[in-house]
This record gives sequence, structure tokens and C-alpha cells, in this order.
Amino acid sequence: MSESYNICLDVGGTKVLGAIFNENREIIYRLKKRSTEGGNTSENVEKVIIDVVEQMIRESGIDKNKIHAIASCAPGVIDQEHGIVLFTPNLPWRDYDIKSSMEQQFGVPFFVGNDVNLGVLGEFKYGAAQGYKNVVGLFVGTGLGGGLILNGELYTGHMFKGGELGHIIVEPDGPLCGCGQHGCLEAFSSKTGMSAFIRQQIAKGKTTLMADAVKDGVFRSKALKKALKAEDKVAIKAVDRACHYLAIATGSLINVFSPDLIVYGGGVIEAVGEVFLSRILAELDQYCMPQIRNTVDVKIAALGDDSVIYGDLAMIEEADEKHQKATE
Amino acid sequence: MSESYNICLDVGGTKVLGAIFNENREIIYRLKKRSTEGGNTSENVEKVIIDVVEQMIRESGIDKNKIHAIASCAPGVIDQEHGIVLFTPNLPWRDYDIKSSMEQQFGVPFFVGNDVNLGVLGEFKYGAAQGYKNVVGLFVGTGLGGGLILNGELYTGHMFKGGELGHIIVEPDGPLCGCGQHGCLEAFSSKTGMSAFIRQQIAKGKTTLMADAVKDGVFRSKALKKALKAEDKVAIKAVDRACHYLAIATGSLINVFSPDLIVYGGGVIEAVGEVFLSRILAELDQYCMPQIRNTVDVKIAALGDDSVIYGDLAMIEEADEKHQKATE
Repeated sequence: MSESYNICLDVGGTKVLGAIFNENREIIYRLKKRSTEGGNTSENVEKVIIDVVEQMIRESGIDKNKIHAIASCAPGVIDQEHGIVLFTPNLPWRDYDIKSSMEQQFGVPFFVGNDVNLGVLGEFKYGAAQGYKNVVGLFVGTGLGGGLILNGELYTGHMFKGGELGHIIVEPDGPLCGCGQHGCLEAFSSKTGMSAFIRQQIAKGKTTLMADAVKDGVFRSKALKKALKAEDKVAIKAVDRACHYLAIATGSLINVFSPDLIVYGGGVIEAVGEVFLSRILAELDQYCMPQIRNTVDVKIAALGDDSVIYGDLAMIEEADEKHQKATE
Repeated sequence: MSESYNICLDVGGTKVLGAIFNENREIIYRLKKRSTEGGNTSENVEKVIIDVVEQMIRESGIDKNKIHAIASCAPGVIDQEHGIVLFTPNLPWRDYDIKSSMEQQFGVPFFVGNDVNLGVLGEFKYGAAQGYKNVVGLFVGTGLGGGLILNGELYTGHMFKGGELGHIIVEPDGPLCGCGQHGCLEAFSSKTGMSAFIRQQIAKGKTTLMADAVKDGVFRSKALKKALKAEDKVAIKAVDRACHYLAIATGSLINVFSPDLIVYGGGVIEAVGEVFLSRILAELDQYCMPQIRNTVDVKIAALGDDSVIYGDLAMIEEADEKHQKATE
């Protein structure tokens, strides 16, 4: 392949990450983190993205005519096949045909997928899940996202709404989750769930290094790492609780899927993954059948913050392969 | 297709059902229920099966040379691709190459699959799940089995061990399950789980019409039907509890898969399915996300006791199609 570039974006509820890959899958440019704030309509968020892509082209100095494709994730329910953002809880997109709009703008193919799905796909093609066939991915961040590779392909379910692994019920009478159910995994084991628990502990009179970090909402992973290092009791208790429920959900998922790999990723895992992994593994065997457990590997994501960016690349390459097959 | 017959068996822990289909998928002969008891080695169980097939050929009067294929389920972990029974909890088979053995015996292709997988496949091809693409099947009997049709194909996971939906943890501190975990769906909602609960109620001094039925183990579905009709309070309580946990597990499975259909089958559902369905539906919306729930149908299996038999037929036909493609 001659000189050719893929522009890959990770668009979250509050920030955009980006990278440009050359034809050898090398990252030749990285965008400094940018905010998506100020985008209160579909068009505004799209303007931010267009602006980001133009900045990336400008700063990297690549030839605009050598761009092969652009890809992005969005946090929500995405019709990956047609490039439609159906629904995003934290961005104002509804049934938005971002593909057509972006292709008109830049004159190259544009692809979009769900953020966690692409994170798992990135790990599957270029990270910790390479060579596996059935992969269950659990991504621990502000929420708790899931992604499924089944028989070597991303599984998205009916209407692209599958893989909501954070909303498995792990404690029927548990705390209220953002989704409206009680006792979801996300309500215990995400940053949101852990932050709520830490605030409860503070309300009960416990002191913790995390007090400032959870005062106005959800802590940052760095604050958790620091508190764990200082052996903060409340932080440890929150992590123990999060890992207990992650072990239960993981056990159930092992029984359901008999996957060959469980992979944990996301910001919290990037920061304190080893702590989480050792605690989950200490309990996991209690919650799944030994004859299934004994053929499952359990790993931490290898690509860190770049999982989604590599997932974008994988999505572009899968579309290329599909296109090639169709025209053969 | 000229005159041609498929012999289909449903081999359980204690009984064998069987039917012969003609080339128009009509059942032209049915075997009366037979016991598998006395089979305490792989070879003995196989002898029972061989004997059953010979009885079916004899009683039906079909021409032995017109048999196209034979298929059976087995209750356990089955390598459906190669026809190996890897493990069965209630029969003495371990890594047993029943395919080779039976093909040698009868000189026609033999296929074998997991019982619940074939039940769901039967419903998918010829029953309540026809026309759906992503189907989650829950079969309530002595145990609680699961089967998954994903993207129009049976999903069996790594080493054919997937789909153990009865072993989702629905109550982390719940009762001990036969599998060794605590609080599995099966421990609440199978006949085994309900029978244990009823015995507990009796031990607490409650009176119930089910007393005899659970005295020596697991009740028969007919006894439950009779007790419910008589408004037996203990039976109603056991069913309410079973359906509560079925609703929780079903909700989690809806969030995980975004299936287009949930189908309930098995002996208990065959007997009192409407009672179960109405109770599950009354609670289900609490345990899954509304934007996923609103595109899922929930149904009772249409083929009753014949789900597996039709699954056998589907397995034979899929093998035929595969063979045809390979030789084209």
C-alpha cells in the first residue's frame, strides 16, 4: 500500500482523543486531549469533531489527499453498519446520520461505533485479546461498559443494543443505578458506584483521602491510585466491594459464554488494574463452574487509553476487507 | 427428495423419547417413553440407544435402507462438530466418540448435540422462535438449561461449554446449587430448587398438597400443576420465588444480549407456562433497560416435549446444507 493515513478518534462525553495511523499501522501523530464541552446539539458536537479532524490534519502535516478513512467511537447505541448514532446518554445525538455528514465534509469514508465495543475490538485485533475467539470485555470507567467478541466477530445484538454487561443484576436489592434498575454491576463497580459508596462512608463519619475527589461527583482514577498507595481504608473498602461484584458478574458471564478470554479495561484498570485483577481472581472461582473456568484466561487490556483508537483502525480495516470481498 | 427417514432421539438422564420424520418433516412414528436406567457405563447407555433405534425401525416398519440419518441429544457438554460426548453429569459418558460408534452400527450419519441447545434450535427452526435472529432460551426442568441463537446460529462457546444460563448468580448469598456455587438461578427456579424450597416450608410446619411429590426428591410437573389449580399456598410461594429470580436473570440476559426473543421451555413450562409467563412479565421491566426491553419479545416454547426432537432434525438438515456447500 502506498502512502495512506487513517484518522482515528475517541469521542467521549467530555473529551476527544485522536491519532493518525500510517499505512504500516504506526501512530505518526497524536492529538492532545480536547474537550467536547459546548456541544449541546448534534451539529455542535459534530462541529467540534470536524474542527478536531482539521486540527489533526494541519498539525500532522499529512497530505489531505492521502487520507484513506476517518473513524470514531461515540458513547451510546450506534448503528455501526450504517453510521448512525441512534442514542447517546451523555451527548445530544439522536438518530443522527454522522456518516453521511462527515463523508460530505471530508470526502473520505467515515465509520462510527460504540466506544466499549471498539475498545474490545481494538484489544481483539491488536492488544491483549489477539488470537482468542470468544472474548468478554469489561471496561471500568465512569460507567461500566461491556463488549463481546463471539466466534471471532463483534456481537452487537438486536438494534445494536447488546453488550450492556454493566447492567447485569448482581444484587437484586442493591443501590439504584443510573439506568433506573437496582443492583446493577455498574452501581457497585464503576467510578460512579465507588464514588457514591465513598460519599456514604464519609457521611457515616469515616475519614478518607478521597473526600475531595468525590465531593462534586466522580473521582479521577489517579486519586484512587494515590489513596490505595497510602492504604486509605475507605478506598480499599470501595475497591474490595467493586471487585466482589465484578467477580460475581464475571463468574456469571463465564457460565453464560464459556469465553476463552475475559479482558478488563478502562481508566480504572489502566490506573490500578493489578489491584483489581488480584482481588477479582481471589473470588472468581466461587462464582463459575470449574469445568468452564478452567479454559478461560483472565487479562488486563494491553492498549490502555488507545484501545478505542485501535478499535477504530480495526473497524476501518474490516470495512476494507468487506468491500474487497464484495468487489472480487 | 425421494422416500427418506430421519430418526431423532431425546436421551435424558432417566428416559428416551424418539420420533421418525419422513422427507416432508412429518412425524410418521413415535417411540413410547423408555427408561435409560441400567446404563452405568458408556457402552451400556449406547446399547440402550442402539436397542431403541432398532425398536423404532422395527415398529415403524420403515425400510432400513431409506434411513438418511440418526440424531440424538445428550444432557451434557457435547462436541457437536465431531460427535463426541465430552461430559455428562447424569450419564456415565466421558470423551465418548458416540458418532463413530453409532455410524459403524447403523451405516448412516449420526449427529449428537446438547439437549437444551437442540431444544432451542428446534424452536428456532420449527417453533416459537422462527424468524428471530438472536434468541435466548431458558428451559425449566429438573435443572435449568439455556440455549443461545446468536446472529442466526447456535452459540456454544469455547469447548462447547457455553449457554449455562441456569448458573447465572442471581443472589450471591443464596442457596447451594448442584454445581457447587451459591445462588444460581437453577437453585431457585428449577424443579430441584423449587422442591428444596417446598421441603423447607414443610419443615417449618406448613402443609401442602406437594408433600408427597417432593418427599423423595424432585416433584413432577403434573403435581405442580394440580397444586396450583387447588391454590396450594406453598406451591404458589415456590412458583412466585422461582419467577422472581427468572425475571432477574432474564432482565440481565436482555441487557447482555439485546436478543429479539426470550423463549421459555421445558417440562415445567409445558405444564404451567402461562402461570410462569404472567408472573415473570409482571416483574421483568424492573430488571432490564427500557430501551432494550422494548424490542424483545417474550414467548413460551411452541413444540413442547418435541423441541429436542425437532432440534435433532434441524441439526441433520444443517449438516446436509454444510455438506452440500462443501461439495458445490
